[in-house]
Amino acid sequence: MRLTIAQLAQRIGAELVAGPDEAKSYITAVGGVETASKSDVTFVTDEKRVGAVGASLAGAVIVGSLIKDLPKSQLVVKNVDAALIEALAVFAPKLKAPGEGIDPSARVGNDVRIAKGVFIGAGVVIDDGVEIGADSVVKSGCKIGEKSKLGKDCRIDSNVVIGHNCSLGNNVIVQANSTIGSTGFGYSFIDGEHRLIPHNGGVVIEDFVEIGANCCIDRAKFGNTIIGAGTKIDNLVQIAHNVVIGKCCLIAGQVGLAGSCRLGDGVVLAGQVGLADNIRIGDRTMVGAKSGVINNVGPDKKLAMIPAIDVKEALRVVAQLLRLPRTAEQVKQLVKRVEELEAAKNNKG
Amino acid sequence: MRLTIAQLAQRIGAELVAGPDEAKSYITAVGGVETASKSDVTFVTDEKRVGAVGASLAGAVIVGSLIKDLPKSQLVVKNVDAALIEALAVFAPKLKAPGEGIDPSARVGNDVRIAKGVFIGAGVVIDDGVEIGADSVVKSGCKIGEKSKLGKDCRIDSNVVIGHNCSLGNNVIVQANSTIGSTGFGYSFIDGEHRLIPHNGGVVIEDFVEIGANCCIDRAKFGNTIIGAGTKIDNLVQIAHNVVIGKCCLIAGQVGLAGSCRLGDGVVLAGQVGLADNIRIGDRTMVGAKSGVINNVGPDKKLAMIPAIDVKEALRVVAQLLRLPRTAEQVKQLVKRVEELEAAKNNKG
Amino acid sequence: MRLTIAQLAQRIGAELVAGPDEAKSYITAVGGVETASKSDVTFVTDEKRVGAVGASLAGAVIVGSLIKDLPKSQLVVKNVDAALIEALAVFAPKLKAPGEGIDPSARVGNDVRIAKGVFIGAGVVIDDGVEIGADSVVKSGCKIGEKSKLGKDCRIDSNVVIGHNCSLGNNVIVQANSTIGSTGFGYSFIDGEHRLIPHNGGVVIEDFVEIGANCCIDRAKFGNTIIGAGTKIDNLVQIAHNVVIGKCCLIAGQVGLAGSCRLGDGVVLAGQVGLADNIRIGDRTMVGAKSGVINNVGPDKKLAMIPAIDVKEALRVVAQLLRLPRTAEQVKQLVKRVEELEAAKNNKG
Repeated sequence: MRLTIAQLAQRIGAELVAGPDEAKSYITAVGGVETASKSDVTFVTDEKRVGAVGASLAGAVIVGSLIKDLPKSQLVVKNVDAALIEALAVFAPKLKAPGEGIDPSARVGNDVRIAKGVFIGAGVVIDDGVEIGADSVVKSGCKIGEKSKLGKDCRIDSNVVIGHNCSLGNNVIVQANSTIGSTGFGYSFIDGEHRLIPHNGGVVIEDFVEIGANCCIDRAKFGNTIIGAGTKIDNLVQIAHNVVIGKCCLIAGQVGLAGSCRLGDGVVLAGQVGLADNIRIGDRTMVGAKSGVINNVGPDKKLAMIPAIDVKEALRVVAQLLRLPRTAEQVKQLVKRVEELEAAKNNKG
Repeated sequence: MRLTIAQLAQRIGAELVAGPDEAKSYITAVGGVETASKSDVTFVTDEKRVGAVGASLAGAVIVGSLIKDLPKSQLVVKNVDAALIEALAVFAPKLKAPGEGIDPSARVGNDVRIAKGVFIGAGVVIDDGVEIGADSVVKSGCKIGEKSKLGKDCRIDSNVVIGHNCSLGNNVIVQANSTIGSTGFGYSFIDGEHRLIPHNGGVVIEDFVEIGANCCIDRAKFGNTIIGAGTKIDNLVQIAHNVVIGKCCLIAGQVGLAGSCRLGDGVVLAGQVGLADNIRIGDRTMVGAKSGVINNVGPDKKLAMIPAIDVKEALRVVAQLLRLPRTAEQVKQLVKRVEELEAAKNNKG
Repeated sequence: MRLTIAQLAQRIGAELVAGPDEAKSYITAVGGVETASKSDVTFVTDEKRVGAVGASLAGAVIVGSLIKDLPKSQLVVKNVDAALIEALAVFAPKLKAPGEGIDPSARVGNDVRIAKGVFIGAGVVIDDGVEIGADSVVKSGCKIGEKSKLGKDCRIDSNVVIGHNCSLGNNVIVQANSTIGSTGFGYSFIDGEHRLIPHNGGVVIEDFVEIGANCCIDRAKFGNTIIGAGTKIDNLVQIAHNVVIGKCCLIAGQVGLAGSCRLGDGVVLAGQVGLADNIRIGDRTMVGAKSGVINNVGPDKKLAMIPAIDVKEALRVVAQLLRLPRTAEQVKQLVKRVEELEAAKNNKG
């Protein structure tokens, strides 16, 4: 795929600021500011990066407002993020479409309903009573358990395992090697042994949810573990039984949510965060990386630290933590000085 | 599945306290106190929840002792946890039994011994010399390496990979996408490169061990990595080479045990805990979530924090940590006040 | 496999110090100092362990220098680590070689180039345009995406999923259930929804890289995510889009690197470490377990803690943290004592 700079400007709805000769140069890819070559278009989303663009070899740059005195073709757009997504889509590698049909090595059970346009890859096992909506793709090596449902336009990457009674909406993506509907970690200690609490519930994953690779989402003990519409989940994330996640949340890599946690809408959990069981987090609250949340928290908060507290207070605590050796030395000196003052007082007294 | 409340009481061995009409109402599922409907039975394990039960729509409630003035059918049992497990088992979704036999797409090597009642799913690869005990289930896409042994009544979920020379006892469950018998992370830096230390050992998993989804258990360099009988392991857990875990331990999600750690019996590690290599932990010791254990610890301890210390001391440390900005401000003021006192003393002196 | 102690000494290039009868005893395995039996050879890499060797039942011991008065056959070598690797290789379990050929259940696309000596296991799916170098092994259940390339002598364990446009060098090992080339976690919030940023880039894994089980390495948004030659990665590691890792790094279990991090050569990250996005770490720098790195760091540093700071300073901080309850009590007492001094001063004044 190649487009002239002028053609690209038209494709992404940009105002082009370039000389007539430059506008005819070809662009074949999107590149980073530092790594782009003449045939790449790059972009500036951060004002601090404007300086670096001058040194970039990129043939053109997508900007939110015209950069003065920049001897480079500029594609001026209202929303750089949106234009970047457009440009990346234009230059995306052309991959073979998965096509339609069921690989003959797949095992399809009884009472399975597969809509038109669906692709079922090699070695896939689909148990009885499963329903798969139109144009969904289930790649090689997947397992879909009894009575589970997939909506339309889903993409289930290779070797994903979905247990029984799980329900995925439309346009759901599950990346490779993830496990949906595993039995949760719930045991009662009875007569000297840990007895598994049966997990009668399922998992409900709503429309436009995207789940990374090697994630685990446990089924509920009763009711459902629920992932709200539009929520995006990174790789290696653990979501325990009966967790309920709201809409449009972002859950970064290696986060762990213990049983029965409830997140509102638009919650953001950064990498390696952990939530204790039964924690409630309000809408739009953000939790910084590696934090450990052990108390419920309302909406529109920002938290950090183990245990997680308000981020501003956390910054104060950490600042004082890092200078704690000096503070402790001050205290030690103060003790001496106060002793001397006390001794002087007593001598006088 | 539906039972009248009276039938359910009989099934779970409960004393029924209900009016004769109520006793004939049908129950079809177990539900949470807040989410249950008329056709659900709910339960109270925590005295603090007694109040919430009054507002529950549940048709009946399993209790440890009669709740006074509760206008709801009560099933009074000695052990609510045990009765809940019974009730959940009664109403568990009825799934197709895996049946017996070897899917024709499976690859079974030479000298493999497969007992009666075993199910081997589609695409499973079983290498030479493997033994599988009666009534075990190996679901689709699994790989079982050379000379590995599974006992009776095991359940190996889809896409689990078990390497060579691994030994699983009876009634072992391994959930989907887990890897047993991976080569551990052991390198010697020799002549300018990291050279892998061969891992000649295996993995021994004893009876009634349950392993979650997407876990990794490395084989030993020599001898065996051992998981003791009755131990339960959650999802995404990393167990390194030569680790030895005792009986009836609980290892929560995303825990990591570095090489050659040894846990006693009944040890509990909460979510995202990490142990440094060669750590010893005594019987029944519990380690709080996100802790980092860098020192050996005896039996019957409770630890928390990074680095992990006694939980009571950890609570004191964290309490002071959170008020550290105020303490630091006090120190700053003290320095001023002591300087003034010293100045006054010197002026007088 | 069994060798006399004399034969073993010859095989690993050791000077043998043993009586003539002892030298004829057979050794069949390598064992740990505490667990070895008469037919095992053990080893001492740590001077502190010399004492324990006296009590070992091992038939022989590999040592770096002769241990005086030890009534046991000694194999004296220059480099115990290297000799241990040799000895483990001698006694490694003999496994069936994977052989050459493509399992008939594998799906091989168009324009695929498979060199001689390659083994492709059951249920493997190889998309169009893939190239696989000589003597590489792709075990059962793997998926290799469009136009990806594997070099010579690679070993891809069962159920690994490699996406399109990924490039693996020679002698690369990827252990079971890992995912290479997943789409990264990059979203722009546009018009009220999180829109995925297309990931046009690939993954480049250089020669002699070894990747553990259940790892995730995301493809780049543009350009490539790169793992430098000789780098070794443990299990359950998350490597986000556009990360660039240098040569001969060691990345321990459950580490997470956020987007666009850059590691120099020889960097060591211990277990459960997390790096914020865009972090730069210089050559040979080591980061202690569970640390959270939020600032760039130069070469040859040692870091620890959340947030990660110089390890020596971190030790001081943690030491003071642990005694913080006592320090806080001292401050409380100081406040009282200063108040008394002030009162006394004022009374006199």
